[in-house]
Parts: sequence; structure tokens; C-alpha cells
Amino acid sequence: MTAITASELKDRLAGLEPIGLGEGGTNRLAWTGELAAAEEWFRQQARGASLRVERDPAGSLWAVPDAPGPWWATGSHLDSVRGGGRYDGALGVAAGFAVAERVPRVAVIAFADEEGARFNTPTFGSRALTGRLDVGDVLGRVDDDGVLLADAMRSAGADPYRLGDAPAWLDRLRGFVELHIDQTRELERLGAPAGAVRSLAARMRLALTFVGRADHAGTTRRGERRDALAAAARVIVAADELAGGDDDFLVTSSRLFVEPNAFTTVPSRVRLWIDARTPDGERLSEWRDLLSQRARELAERTGIEIELATASHSDGVEFDARVLAAMPGLPELVCFAGHDAGILAPRVPAGMVFVRNATGVSHAPDEHVELADAAVAAEALRATLEALA
Amino acid sequence: MTAITASELKDRLAGLEPIGLGEGGTNRLAWTGELAAAEEWFRQQARGASLRVERDPAGSLWAVPDAPGPWWATGSHLDSVRGGGRYDGALGVAAGFAVAERVPRVAVIAFADEEGARFNTPTFGSRALTGRLDVGDVLGRVDDDGVLLADAMRSAGADPYRLGDAPAWLDRLRGFVELHIDQTRELERLGAPAGAVRSLAARMRLALTFVGRADHAGTTRRGERRDALAAAARVIVAADELAGGDDDFLVTSSRLFVEPNAFTTVPSRVRLWIDARTPDGERLSEWRDLLSQRARELAERTGIEIELATASHSDGVEFDARVLAAMPGLPELVCFAGHDAGILAPRVPAGMVFVRNATGVSHAPDEHVELADAAVAAEALRATLEALA
Repeated sequence: MTAITASELKDRLAGLEPIGLGEGGTNRLAWTGELAAAEEWFRQQARGASLRVERDPAGSLWAVPDAPGPWWATGSHLDSVRGGGRYDGALGVAAGFAVAERVPRVAVIAFADEEGARFNTPTFGSRALTGRLDVGDVLGRVDDDGVLLADAMRSAGADPYRLGDAPAWLDRLRGFVELHIDQTRELERLGAPAGAVRSLAARMRLALTFVGRADHAGTTRRGERRDALAAAARVIVAADELAGGDDDFLVTSSRLFVEPNAFTTVPSRVRLWIDARTPDGERLSEWRDLLSQRARELAERTGIEIELATASHSDGVEFDARVLAAMPGLPELVCFAGHDAGILAPRVPAGMVFVRNATGVSHAPDEHVELADAAVAAEALRATLEALA
Repeated sequence: MTAITASELKDRLAGLEPIGLGEGGTNRLAWTGELAAAEEWFRQQARGASLRVERDPAGSLWAVPDAPGPWWATGSHLDSVRGGGRYDGALGVAAGFAVAERVPRVAVIAFADEEGARFNTPTFGSRALTGRLDVGDVLGRVDDDGVLLADAMRSAGADPYRLGDAPAWLDRLRGFVELHIDQTRELERLGAPAGAVRSLAARMRLALTFVGRADHAGTTRRGERRDALAAAARVIVAADELAGGDDDFLVTSSRLFVEPNAFTTVPSRVRLWIDARTPDGERLSEWRDLLSQRARELAERTGIEIELATASHSDGVEFDARVLAAMPGLPELVCFAGHDAGILAPRVPAGMVFVRNATGVSHAPDEHVELADAAVAAEALRATLEALA
């Protein structure tokens, strides 16, 4: 069969691209009418590849071959963030069908709610599949319009009470290889159209609260004040410095609220969120321990109550060595974002192929890849699955 | 005549206290109906002391004796912050009438809009009187309801076009001594019911803007990020440390906004306000220069654009030595807040008597003083004006 070309990918994407596309970017949130329209496109693609479509209990769509499972699978996700780009997720599903048409016994999966933009439930489908979703917690979440996740699932034709049955479907999977756009400029820097992801970095989100006391900024003596922002600033600096200046240890104090936030009042309360990522999960935990220690010392010295909680945490993931070995001579990368393939990796052999992104822009309307690069990556994905399946 | 007692002050305040008092505290903002009601109380007090009430072009009320001016005067202000206390300003006016009834040729002034809570125009009346009010700037200010200050003045019966005539009234003043509650616990610490204010600290408000770039927190390399909050945190720490740990150099990073303030985005923009006060104006200017230098170095090192502007600045004020010498054996204090007496001090002999405040709370409903302490302070004010007038 012929090689996968830019023009084939363009044709495949043509039916998907307009769905949810507005001036502010692509809006295909989980369990919405836009997503249902994208799933209809998925069903058409499956028919073209002679695959049968099934829906798992988490709402992910599987296009599976007639041959009995378990199968090697590829794919990605169809949902987007609010105002997202055209390729994040979509390209991996389109390329997946191009590969599945050429390689026998390969399934294509569109995982449900990878972005988690509506209910703050990222990698929903793959977490459900691997039993790592706290079902009781997520079903009660509400979106910005007050709609319960359970009701949103129902309105999309999925049964929330079956969510706990999803892990049984994991047995149908021999392994999973995902094609995705690079969300950094790494491949651009390397001058390569495609790359093989060796591992996903470990990630942690800390939520901190600093409680001091609101006093008059002009008349409260230094020794008597409990300044929550002065303490928070020291923790922000410490969080950054404890990362040691390494280019692959990313620490971002991203979100901060001050109360009462008035010109002449000592800040009484600060809430702060810190995002931290580095390839080595152990190093990340050590960083957290050191920061926690610093916070304790600071609390003792200043009288500020500091609460430091781990809002979310995922250890780094090494992708499967056999999958990586099967990839034909691509440069290797470490990825700092989360992906369904990373959620699956601890349970089944998994890997990822990245497509060059000249600007690194993602989760935004001007996200862009050259489809010629995407075709190179899709051919690499095809070769990989041919070798493995 | 008899000594001023707690019970006399209580009686005088009884007519004023309920005006604008609600569950959240006292609300008597400038140019409102509540303030007009308080001014009616002022007129009654003036009648009781056989003083004639006149209004100056800035809207301040003067209760003056029949004897020709210039006069020594006392008083304070009748307006409050939003949700303020019962004594800030009010006590000084009530005690002023108690003194003026006993000491001949003493006037009582209620300065207009001392708090500046409605239009961000603190010490409005005394600034206008000393020619330090930027008339063109303030008349165009709007309150939270979109009302122009000029229209608010008109609705209170004052002519905004005459505001520039206020400085001519300064010639009517030989000097001014103000009684006010302590807004710190300083007198409580000293175990004294009343104190003499030697000077007002120098004050400065800096407005800073940090401009970086919004990037993905997970995928933007350390060397490529321009993190506005990381820079702001370092400036907050530097502003504090450059003050050198002295108990009389107060630095407060009080107000801060982060953009876009999202979990996984590098902060692109931070706005920060820093309030700084210390007795020595020169030391305050040196501090600003050092901070500015640090900000420049940080900007060079990080690529963040940092703008540091002086939003307001007042040099410290030494009160008049003759006034201070006339105060009968009171402990001396440095005051870190602003007052009308401090605005007048560079132009006419001025001084202040403070009343003990056990908690230091002010600008809040539970602001409290013992009226027995206030009576001691009022007697000291009386003795001072008897010696001076």
C-alpha cells in the first residue's frame, strides 16, 4: 500500500476540523454536541478502514478489527480545551486511521475527555480504563453551568453507573502507540520532523495557603505583623531556587490570590498554586520535601500558618523499551505534558510519536503543524506498529 | 471651669455616634447625607460653645470665636472610612468643643474628607487649605457609583469652582493641635493614657508592573520563560530586606494581581503596590533607590520588563517644637499614619495629642478607646492651647 501523505491526512482531517471551530479556536468539550459530531466523523473513518466501533464504559470510542483481541492500538482524543488548536488529539486519531487501514489487526481509540477542560478531569478515559479514576469523586463534579458530570455523560448516551466497569476493557489492549503534536519547540530545535518520546516527566501541583492577619500597613510594628504575602513571596523564590536552575526542572508559581488586597492593609491570606515537572519522579518528591521543610521553618519564624498540600501528582513514566526500539531512527524526547499513552504505560506496553511544532504553540487557535511532518510521523507510527503487531 | 470628664465626652459624642452607624461599622463618607447630619451635630456643638460656624471653600467647617483671627484651632474630621470606628476623627472634634468652651479665642475645625475613602482623596480639606491639592485632578475623580467629585461637592452645598480659593483661609490660623486616637498599641505599651506626637513618618507608595510572557507552564524551558510572578516575588523579598529589619521601617507589599492566573500558564503580568514608611525621609528615598537598582538588575537578568513608579510620597513631618514644649509631660511618639495636622505642619505651628488604644484596632467597627483616657488627653490639649493662645 502507498505511503501516508500530507494530502491524505488533510483529507481525513477535513471532516473533523470545522466541528466546534470558531473565531476563538476549536471548542469540542467532553460530552457536548460538538463532541458527538466529532464521534460521528470517527465512525465514518472507522467504516472506511473496515473497523467496528464500540464504546467502552468510560465513553471512549474503539474502532476494532474483526480479528479477535487483544490488539495493538493507536489513536488519541477528539476533545479540545476551550479555544484550542486544530491538531492536538485530532491529528493522532486521523493518523491512526491512516495506519489502521495499512496495518492489519490494529485498533484506533479516541479516549474520552483527555483535556478535562469541562470538569477538570484530564485523561478521563485512560484513567478509567486503568482503574485510576476516583469514580465517586468525578461523577459529582459540576461544570461552569452547574451540570453534573454524571448528567453530562447521560446526555451523551453513556451510563455513569457503568464507569467502574471500564478496567475490564484493558484486557483487549496489547499495547498503545499515540501520535501527537509536540507542544514545545524541541523537534524544531533538533531539525527533525518527528521524534520518539522516551518518557513523560513527573508532575506535581501544590496548593498552598498562607494565613496571617490583616493589620494597618502604616501603624503595625514589624515584630507584630503577620504578612501572608511576604511569606508567600519567600516560598515562591525558594520553590524556584530549590529546582537548582536545571533546564529540565520546571517550577511555575502560576496562580495567586491575595486578601484583602488593599493599599494600606497587611495581607492576611494568600492562596498559591505551584506547578512542578521534571523527568525524575524521585527528584520531584525530594524537591517537595525540601520546600515543605522551608515552609515549616518560615512558619515558625514569621508566625504565618502555611498549609502545603499536593493537589495532584504523577510519577514520571518510562515508555516501553520494545516500543521505543521498534521506532525507526527517530530522535528521542522527554515530554513534560500529560497524555493518555502515559496513563496506559504502567499497565500495557506504550509509546508516543511526536510531530514537529515550529512555534511550540498549543492549546491556542494558532497551534500549527506542517502536514508533511505529520506524514513522516504517521509513517514512523506505521512502521512501529508493523514491527510490533 | 471644671475639668473635662469621660462623661462630658460621652454626652458630646452621643449625638454623633448613631449617624451612619450600621452593623458593619460607621459609614460617614465625604459629601453624603450622613456627613451632612454629622455637620448638623457640629453646628449644635458650636452653638453650645458660642462659636460661629463658617464653611471654607474646601468644605471644611470652622467654628470660630467672636474675637478677630488668626486663632489657634483644634478639631479633626467627621468623615469615616467604609465600616470605620466611632472615634477616629469624631473624638478629636468632640474634645475640641470641650476645650473651646474652656479656652477663649480657640476655633474648632472639622476638615473635609480626611479619610478620602470615597474618591481616594485623603486629607482633602487640609491639602486644599495649604494649596497642596491638585484641583484639576481631584474634581474629575469618580466614586464607585460613577459620581464626579465636583458633583458630590455641589450636592453637599459646596462650590467646586471655589476650591482654589481655600489657601486664603490659612491666614486665619495661628496654629492647629489635633487630638486623635492612637492607631497602634504604642501608648498601651508605654502604659500611658495620652501621648504627644513628635513627628509623622515619611511615607511612600510604589506602583510596580512586571511584564513577562504567557507560556505553557509544562513545556516552556527554563531559559525561555519570562515569569512575571517569579520576578515580583524577588522584588517583594528585596523590598522587605532592604528595610533592614528595623521596627520603625515598615514595608508592606499590600496589593498584587497576577495575569492570566491560570494553573498551567507562566504568569505574563503582575501589578504590585508597596507601602513604605519610616521616620527619616532621606532613608526612605535611599531605600527606593536601592530597590529600583535591584529591579533593574533583575530585569536585565530575567528579561522581565519592570516599571517602578512612585504613586505617592510625603516626607516626614516634625511637629512644632513650641507646641510640643507646651504639652504637659506626655510621652512622645512618632506617628506612621497621615493626619490633617501633618499636612498643616509645614505651614503653621502644629501638633497632635494621641489617646491610648489598647488593641491598636482602627478603621474597623471594634475600634475602641476608654473615654477616661480621652478625658486625660483632652485636658492635655486644653493645657497646651491655654499655654499657646
